[in-house]
Amino acid sequence: MNMFTRTTFASAVIALCLFAHPALAQGQSALARVPPDLLEDIVIGSRILADFGVVDGFGHVSARNPSNPKHFLMSRSLAPALVTAEDIMEFDEDGNAIDANGRSVFLERFIHAEIYKARPDVMSVVHTHSPGVIPFTVSKTQLRPLFHNAGFLAAGAPVWDIAKQFGPTDMLVRDNSIGKSLARTLGDKSVVLMRGHGDATVGPSVKIAVFRAYYTDVNAKLQTQAIGLGTEVTYLSAEEGKNADTVNFAVIDRIWNLWKQRVQATMK
Amino acid sequence: MNMFTRTTFASAVIALCLFAHPALAQGQSALARVPPDLLEDIVIGSRILADFGVVDGFGHVSARNPSNPKHFLMSRSLAPALVTAEDIMEFDEDGNAIDANGRSVFLERFIHAEIYKARPDVMSVVHTHSPGVIPFTVSKTQLRPLFHNAGFLAAGAPVWDIAKQFGPTDMLVRDNSIGKSLARTLGDKSVVLMRGHGDATVGPSVKIAVFRAYYTDVNAKLQTQAIGLGTEVTYLSAEEGKNADTVNFAVIDRIWNLWKQRVQATMK
Amino acid sequence: MNMFTRTTFASAVIALCLFAHPALAQGQSALARVPPDLLEDIVIGSRILADFGVVDGFGHVSARNPSNPKHFLMSRSLAPALVTAEDIMEFDEDGNAIDANGRSVFLERFIHAEIYKARPDVMSVVHTHSPGVIPFTVSKTQLRPLFHNAGFLAAGAPVWDIAKQFGPTDMLVRDNSIGKSLARTLGDKSVVLMRGHGDATVGPSVKIAVFRAYYTDVNAKLQTQAIGLGTEVTYLSAEEGKNADTVNFAVIDRIWNLWKQRVQATMK
Amino acid sequence: MNMFTRTTFASAVIALCLFAHPALAQGQSALARVPPDLLEDIVIGSRILADFGVVDGFGHVSARNPSNPKHFLMSRSLAPALVTAEDIMEFDEDGNAIDANGRSVFLERFIHAEIYKARPDVMSVVHTHSPGVIPFTVSKTQLRPLFHNAGFLAAGAPVWDIAKQFGPTDMLVRDNSIGKSLARTLGDKSVVLMRGHGDATVGPSVKIAVFRAYYTDVNAKLQTQAIGLGTEVTYLSAEEGKNADTVNFAVIDRIWNLWKQRVQATMK
Repeated sequence: MNMFTRTTFASAVIALCLFAHPALAQGQSALARVPPDLLEDIVIGSRILADFGVVDGFGHVSARNPSNPKHFLMSRSLAPALVTAEDIMEFDEDGNAIDANGRSVFLERFIHAEIYKARPDVMSVVHTHSPGVIPFTVSKTQLRPLFHNAGFLAAGAPVWDIAKQFGPTDMLVRDNSIGKSLARTLGDKSVVLMRGHGDATVGPSVKIAVFRAYYTDVNAKLQTQAIGLGTEVTYLSAEEGKNADTVNFAVIDRIWNLWKQRVQATMK
Repeated sequence: MNMFTRTTFASAVIALCLFAHPALAQGQSALARVPPDLLEDIVIGSRILADFGVVDGFGHVSARNPSNPKHFLMSRSLAPALVTAEDIMEFDEDGNAIDANGRSVFLERFIHAEIYKARPDVMSVVHTHSPGVIPFTVSKTQLRPLFHNAGFLAAGAPVWDIAKQFGPTDMLVRDNSIGKSLARTLGDKSVVLMRGHGDATVGPSVKIAVFRAYYTDVNAKLQTQAIGLGTEVTYLSAEEGKNADTVNFAVIDRIWNLWKQRVQATMK
Repeated sequence: MNMFTRTTFASAVIALCLFAHPALAQGQSALARVPPDLLEDIVIGSRILADFGVVDGFGHVSARNPSNPKHFLMSRSLAPALVTAEDIMEFDEDGNAIDANGRSVFLERFIHAEIYKARPDVMSVVHTHSPGVIPFTVSKTQLRPLFHNAGFLAAGAPVWDIAKQFGPTDMLVRDNSIGKSLARTLGDKSVVLMRGHGDATVGPSVKIAVFRAYYTDVNAKLQTQAIGLGTEVTYLSAEEGKNADTVNFAVIDRIWNLWKQRVQATMK
Repeated sequence: MNMFTRTTFASAVIALCLFAHPALAQGQSALARVPPDLLEDIVIGSRILADFGVVDGFGHVSARNPSNPKHFLMSRSLAPALVTAEDIMEFDEDGNAIDANGRSVFLERFIHAEIYKARPDVMSVVHTHSPGVIPFTVSKTQLRPLFHNAGFLAAGAPVWDIAKQFGPTDMLVRDNSIGKSLARTLGDKSVVLMRGHGDATVGPSVKIAVFRAYYTDVNAKLQTQAIGLGTEVTYLSAEEGKNADTVNFAVIDRIWNLWKQRVQATMK
């Protein structure tokens, strides 16, 4: 059995584990037309970000529903490290659960709902409390791309401060108006930092949105180290960043397959 | 077997392992009326803090005894990573062991005894040598909340210096008078830093006290990074901190269940 | 079975696993005359660097082909943590794959091709996005040897900026002319830093090139810490560095055997 | 089977594994009178320091031979993570191997030989390339005790610079005269830092010397963080440090038992 066969076989086994469950067909009939690969991507993405510490008990990965582009798919309220395909639910454009069946949902689903509404190009949204990034959400120092894998940061990574529009809150994106404000600050960028909270990254696929969540965290840590060296830091230019980000799309499967194998090893 | 069933089943197995031991009924008859869930919380809390490196070989998690609120429950002298339900003993309001049966006890049990005495609202106390926090115990830089999960720090995290009242010591809370001094500095706060030593966190439940011990450490590390960026840092306001802490109570089970599964996986 | 026997036995088992596969003899007939130990070194080197986080999903380890010194050996396009002996392919002096058989290749194979061309003494090349090193690639602060294991840095660790000759790019070494430019900056040194990207290390064997990739990362992290202490830092002198590097050759097997055992444990 | 029984049973199994090997009785007859517990302490100490990253492929733990106090016990040349009781050899007061039987020995055994000669109170010596400590060996910033577990640093942690007496070398303690120079700088302290190299810690038992190696590393990292906060740092006073170190002796078994269980889990 060569490398490819092995990988394919393992994927099949996982797919079986994730989707053969009777509860799935019953409780999630709304998801019947969702490609299993997409559910798997949400599971892999949630778990790999947990494995890397980019999310801890909190944070979420969602995807736009390809059969109904106004709706999106996201886990019920659950730590990302524990998400399985059967935990994924469907939400409408305002973040209301379809077929909740008593399952509890994430308070901050409005991050996702409002970004999908504002950005038709976005197919996936990731929200994290990334430990590398949080310091940049409360600092006057701007997060900027230090290396090619984080080239997408060259377009800008604006900081959204909930207090500006909403005064003293509990910091959470707990309704549509707050989500709308966040989506407005995100604009046409790939990443928005949330003051005293974390970040949201977006992309044209789950893989790319997760990749950006991961490398935003890595870049933030590298930038913190570089600043600590005490001398001038050279960042990627806007053009370099844009070019480098194009490459990410070409190589995403190499790192995604690695991540999938890591996650699958822990799911056995 | 769905997610819920599996979790419940695993819990039952763990519960069985933790409580079926004959020594338990004999040696710990004083604990007969303590809810098994509470003993389990102490075990899970001790082990998850060890797993995260918030405690190493030292540190302890205790709970007020619900059947006898003047008393509290804490492990015999043992590294937190090794604590099982059968290691938990009962202590009176001055920190004297009930039914020691030759088991050795923590020297610093007075941290717990005196805080329970001074703070009737406190149901659990955690003491750690948290690696993120220790630098703040010896610095003029104040530990302040950087993000919502550490909102409880907005009320203040005073530093207690044992030398102020007791001169040169071995730094330990080795009697009731030292414990009383520490409890006085804690006041009505959730966290007290101990100069050259570590911290103590408190809460209305084991889960919340452990959550605070964990996020105090996380916040300290994030604040150290943020200061390293060399520009002004914005902390949560008092009101934001208070509001954010309220949310922690609502979401505690999401992260606690994750932690329980992690701990249970290592106990198999 | 004593230590030595056990190690030898384990090596034999691994060798069997790595080389007994039928696909190997067929698809890689060009590699028939390559010593199995050399293929194993590439596998061990790739995986240990992944295990230490010196490479993530990207990066590669190559070796000059001893049977045909103008050619070199490198994995097909694959995350380093997943490389097996059967993934290793042969490339000519310009980086063209021999017997590709439909397998995809690394875009940046020109790093390797041009260094082998320019440096007849080099038998192995490693390319990483080392998290300790990247900050030094974008800083005016020079990477210098702090301790004996990184003595090879005393000869210099020049920073190559792709923009100098090629203007705004995607930062990658995607053709021979870019590779040639990089090799020119490397000169007769053991390490070259690549601005906004990573580094390349070389050596007279896979073991030494991997050792240098690892200790370049370690030294970079230690230097970042040392600079953070805020006082003057003393580096190894040129002579100390040169002497210390000689010792590395004498002790390489002690650490390599440890790394091999770690990698083998994860391959079971 | 309760906690205690289980521990004892596990220890017995380990002891059996470590000592039942026929090669032991033959090749190491000189060690026949060495208490098995002492060999086990060297094994546990070597492996736990590797587990914590205080040593990597290099570093060593030794003990004075209780049956022949001029001699000492240390592993053959081997990565600390791999040391077993059967690898331990006896050395005379000048660092010559007794009964080498073709086994290779550590180049730097003179660190140990000369410290045992100069310090009759020392029963164990540990040499590491501790990643927290190396920055302090090349900095003008003095390593000082930040918290009680590192109280032993209050007596001083002098930095030894090999270049002062020996000019440009390969940085290694490769003969008796260099070892003597190092021992002289250690003086009556518990720790000596070695410029551009690492440190050596000593104690009246293997457990204490290993404890000091570990907490020297922890303290160094905490001090680096504390300095990074940018305000004045308060260190333990000489008297506090001395008092606190006394407590370490009382609680050493609590943490040692934890470490033993961790090591034993990896040896199964």
